[in-house]
Amino acid sequence: MKPENPSFHAHHSPMGALASFTCGAHGAKGGMGLELPAAFQGEISIGYLDAENTLSLLPLFEGSESSESERYVEGAEGTSGKLKVLQGVQRDYKWATDTIGAEGVSLEIATPFFPIPDPAEAMPSELGFASCPVVHLTLRFTNDSTTSRRGIFALGIDRRWSSLEESTGGSLTGATSQGQIGFATDTDGVSCWMDFDPISAMNRQHSTPEFLLGPTAGLEVEVGPGEEKTIEIVLGFFKSGPATYNRELSYYYTQHFTNLSQVLEYGLASREDYLAIAAERDAELEKATLNDEQKFLIAHATRSYYGSTQWLWDGAKSVWVVNEGEYLMMNTFDLTVDMLFFEMQFNPWTVRNILEQFTERYSFYDSVFDPQDPDTLYPGGLSFTHDMGVMNHWSPAGRSSYEVGGLDRACFSHMTCEQLTNWVLCAGVYYAQTRDEGFLRKHRQTLVECYESLQNRDNPDPAKRDGIMSFESSRTEGGGEITTYDSLDHSLGQSRRNIYLGGKMWASYVVLESLFTESALEELADNAAASAKLAADTLTKGFNEELGFIPAVLEENNQSAIIPAIEALVYPHVMGLTHATDPEGPFSEYIATLKKHFHHIMDTGMCLYEDGGWKLSSSADNSWMSKINLCQFVARAVLGFDFGEAQFKADQAHARWEREGSKLSACSDQFRSGVAHGSLYYPRIVTNILWLSE
Amino acid sequence: MKPENPSFHAHHSPMGALASFTCGAHGAKGGMGLELPAAFQGEISIGYLDAENTLSLLPLFEGSESSESERYVEGAEGTSGKLKVLQGVQRDYKWATDTIGAEGVSLEIATPFFPIPDPAEAMPSELGFASCPVVHLTLRFTNDSTTSRRGIFALGIDRRWSSLEESTGGSLTGATSQGQIGFATDTDGVSCWMDFDPISAMNRQHSTPEFLLGPTAGLEVEVGPGEEKTIEIVLGFFKSGPATYNRELSYYYTQHFTNLSQVLEYGLASREDYLAIAAERDAELEKATLNDEQKFLIAHATRSYYGSTQWLWDGAKSVWVVNEGEYLMMNTFDLTVDMLFFEMQFNPWTVRNILEQFTERYSFYDSVFDPQDPDTLYPGGLSFTHDMGVMNHWSPAGRSSYEVGGLDRACFSHMTCEQLTNWVLCAGVYYAQTRDEGFLRKHRQTLVECYESLQNRDNPDPAKRDGIMSFESSRTEGGGEITTYDSLDHSLGQSRRNIYLGGKMWASYVVLESLFTESALEELADNAAASAKLAADTLTKGFNEELGFIPAVLEENNQSAIIPAIEALVYPHVMGLTHATDPEGPFSEYIATLKKHFHHIMDTGMCLYEDGGWKLSSSADNSWMSKINLCQFVARAVLGFDFGEAQFKADQAHARWEREGSKLSACSDQFRSGVAHGSLYYPRIVTNILWLSE
Repeated sequence: MKPENPSFHAHHSPMGALASFTCGAHGAKGGMGLELPAAFQGEISIGYLDAENTLSLLPLFEGSESSESERYVEGAEGTSGKLKVLQGVQRDYKWATDTIGAEGVSLEIATPFFPIPDPAEAMPSELGFASCPVVHLTLRFTNDSTTSRRGIFALGIDRRWSSLEESTGGSLTGATSQGQIGFATDTDGVSCWMDFDPISAMNRQHSTPEFLLGPTAGLEVEVGPGEEKTIEIVLGFFKSGPATYNRELSYYYTQHFTNLSQVLEYGLASREDYLAIAAERDAELEKATLNDEQKFLIAHATRSYYGSTQWLWDGAKSVWVVNEGEYLMMNTFDLTVDMLFFEMQFNPWTVRNILEQFTERYSFYDSVFDPQDPDTLYPGGLSFTHDMGVMNHWSPAGRSSYEVGGLDRACFSHMTCEQLTNWVLCAGVYYAQTRDEGFLRKHRQTLVECYESLQNRDNPDPAKRDGIMSFESSRTEGGGEITTYDSLDHSLGQSRRNIYLGGKMWASYVVLESLFTESALEELADNAAASAKLAADTLTKGFNEELGFIPAVLEENNQSAIIPAIEALVYPHVMGLTHATDPEGPFSEYIATLKKHFHHIMDTGMCLYEDGGWKLSSSADNSWMSKINLCQFVARAVLGFDFGEAQFKADQAHARWEREGSKLSACSDQFRSGVAHGSLYYPRIVTNILWLSE
Repeated sequence: MKPENPSFHAHHSPMGALASFTCGAHGAKGGMGLELPAAFQGEISIGYLDAENTLSLLPLFEGSESSESERYVEGAEGTSGKLKVLQGVQRDYKWATDTIGAEGVSLEIATPFFPIPDPAEAMPSELGFASCPVVHLTLRFTNDSTTSRRGIFALGIDRRWSSLEESTGGSLTGATSQGQIGFATDTDGVSCWMDFDPISAMNRQHSTPEFLLGPTAGLEVEVGPGEEKTIEIVLGFFKSGPATYNRELSYYYTQHFTNLSQVLEYGLASREDYLAIAAERDAELEKATLNDEQKFLIAHATRSYYGSTQWLWDGAKSVWVVNEGEYLMMNTFDLTVDMLFFEMQFNPWTVRNILEQFTERYSFYDSVFDPQDPDTLYPGGLSFTHDMGVMNHWSPAGRSSYEVGGLDRACFSHMTCEQLTNWVLCAGVYYAQTRDEGFLRKHRQTLVECYESLQNRDNPDPAKRDGIMSFESSRTEGGGEITTYDSLDHSLGQSRRNIYLGGKMWASYVVLESLFTESALEELADNAAASAKLAADTLTKGFNEELGFIPAVLEENNQSAIIPAIEALVYPHVMGLTHATDPEGPFSEYIATLKKHFHHIMDTGMCLYEDGGWKLSSSADNSWMSKINLCQFVARAVLGFDFGEAQFKADQAHARWEREGSKLSACSDQFRSGVAHGSLYYPRIVTNILWLSE
């Protein structure tokens, strides 16, 4: 796919290393970063020095958005030289390769991804291959001039470098910094240099190529007139020792690699295998029957997902963590449930891994109360925390980093009911798609407790239940719970009586019915089916003929229209529980009502932006790409909508939100009128993997 | 000492941890940093919340220079509150304690320093005490109001925190971040909190004191009406695993402490012992017969020195590194020779340690050439590199990070001749003050080779020698060497025929005569004495009656006047080689000429700034505090000058350069007309320790 505007940042990351070579936006800083909430702020210099001593570079550094074709610039230590920013940049943005090129030079960045084998069962060699924290570059220089050029690649950082020549006995050329980031090549004829910056290096007055005092390290190669030259480069990341705090876990790759040099050597030695996988992924996405903007969104989302992944080792087993983009919260559960579909496709063991981290360490029992009478507590039950910590700091067992008490339906309040549905929904999809009987057996009691807890959050008095949440967790200390949509108004932000969360409760009951049946818990299965019916009926009855839709919150005369009313249909759908979404099935009325709801709010434009992009709530200018992409799938694949030409218009709008509205933040989630304003650099948008199954 | 302006940054550092709690400048960022080239850019919040919910803070955070007495401010997440910046800040800046206070609150920062015992001979318990990377705070709150206050202390960073409560089983209160920095207290009644910022925390709407999502962690204590309360706090630093690259060495303290919690526990448990030492140091400086500005300069220099020190462990022995301030070059040899006097007073083993690192790893043999005929090479000899690496990256053996080839007397050229004198001069002072016979025996051959190498840099043809440098190192590849004064014009920057370096060659010969005599190498001793005579005569003859001084460079009609002509007299002086500096001794003419030189250039004001500060060279506006302070000592203690009232005027000027001209950079070295413009945050200024011996 060739995006209409090639200037935007993208993650380029290994799997599970919480590391990224972020670049792509013109005139912006970028580079290799570990554990960062945003693009590394360095300089990337790729281009060539010609016979007139003009350095022509791709616009991948700050200040390079200038359209001046050529200018004199001064290096850090007073050495000056001619600099030309290459114009007419082309970009080819595939699933696992990203190629940025202009006249005379192109950079291909390969980030192969593939199923990570279950570490409990795989061979060490497979695990080494899957965990090796490398990214592969191919630099191609074409010199159609009549004089020689020097092709260069360089990274400018704020620390300093050591040369690999010495530490690898000359087998690799390249440089590493602080043992954490580095690059290497074994291409013949390439030499390494260090200096203050490329201008200083290319115009150096001195005779020492590796001037160790400089923060920039690079490679160079002679490209004769009429010649083509390719440099094969591996970028490597490494963090030794404890990677997390308050529980000292290390990166999984440290089980296989002792240091960065080993990573770089392995990366180069296995280069062909990695590139073959990248090509395979590229081909898969290319042949999909999706439009180019959809393919762009999938490729963009995939990169941001892997940039946030962190595969750890606790001394006995693997621990899978996905960090929450710019916020770096660890395994935020309401993201897990959205990234579920992606992880189920590639490595279902990570879903189980996270679910069991929640049961073992981040679960708890609470009480519940009626918001009209906060002082009277009733039995609540089992639930799970919002997350497991932040920025590599594990939160204490049973606590998230995010949730605090005493807030009434405001950001940072508890998400107890929604996280409870998330455990059930993830478990359901995991089991349905793996048939992992051991998992189901092990968590039979958990599922029973989840069901009880869900019901108590509806109403502790069985007689008064209507299937959706009405009681608040005691953890709010008299306040009120929120949903994952924490920065929206009550249409999506408040939990109780919310039809978005109501839909997830309905789906949870449907899932529980299925899992109880599989577990031969017939009575519970029947009960769960009845609960689902109760929820569906309540939501159906919520339909307001006058409004033409189900208002977002079934209390206090709320009149917001929300797209995510339909969101939870995805779970029975991907589990193959076709009865649940069958227009003629037991929930026929509910399905029909949702169709009517959705048709109305889209048809009237209540939930559309002017550019055709989707607006999750009619009453809030804050629309989340992950959820839009998910609901697009549900509308088409479950409810059977065909958007005709509006489909491409919406996809193009969404793609532009990412490319223009989130230019410097790679793939982001929250947009206000097409501009990212939160949840930047975010992993969650991989809900769009579902499109590949349509 | 109570500096006239209390607003300036200072290092507050343990010994050997390359760590600093930098703070003191009003309205500026500061905080705890590891291995940084400048102050950590965080927020320090110290003050109290009163009954009207106004938060009164010392001005130790960005924006606090405002003189507005009270204003509403908004916390990071929209919570607002009243903020008052405390006015009338007082500062008491002693050698090992720095007290910053205003009405109602004071912060005392204790940084005890003391002789680090030779690790090869000391008991583990002594080494643990000396290496423990802690700084001690005492917070005093005085509430003379009629209502209760909450005293607070907080640090805002860009990462997140874990609570110590959980990890220490409740024995400590406080927080740590990434296992690298943290604070703890065991004072009763103190609790810990975390939040976005102090305004959010003090006005929080929620009920969770430790809100883990926030980048600010703090302590708070209730201070009743009329009460005084003290919180005893320890700040701890820690970096586990390899601390350096291209040779993996760890911090010495990791031999004694496993993690940051241990460091904090030990720091608190040993608090009284540490504070007693700080008080001892304070008293020593207080009772010295120096003016307050001199005492300020000593205290300021000492802090910046320790902030740059790095005590490492290579698996078998200690490795001492002093980093070069903002540049973070490791063991820059031309700094070592200046910091020599300080280290000899406290821990001479560090001098030997560095000298032997140079002989073992950072020495080499070169050739020399006549600058008139660069292609003809002659035997040169042994010398040493400028440094050993940069930012924890060891440079390859035999190479510095700084020096590059092909430059003719320009910044980053080689300093071969000067580093050669530095090894001799350090070895001489080390031996004279320790009588370490083993050292002398071991390095007898080195000294012989140094002598030969020095002579060859004068002239490979013995008949043509005149005692000072005329031949350039082959490492310059046809260029020309520079001195440590790399950013000055040729008056101090060029090596050959330079009277500053000539003085150091003279001193080296004097030192060698002494060391050869001690080694029973009588013939070499006689030769060295003759070489010293030759150098002294050449320098003496350089005196230009017309100019009234010895021009800085004895070639090409140079007419600059430089103070450091007298610098090298310090070496025989501190070695007790009284004959060398005796006005009636063998170098009487040289001494008399230097007196005349110095008297003239100071008397005429050629080498003075208008404020009375010293200008090292008449032809360059770039004056270095370390060298000024050293030459002040030489002028007074060796040449017998009495500056009368000009003394205090100069000291006050120099102190103001640091306080005003280097406000945000702690103690700096290079000043242009009183403003620091390079060598910021620098360790070298401890040459002023010599003043205590006058």
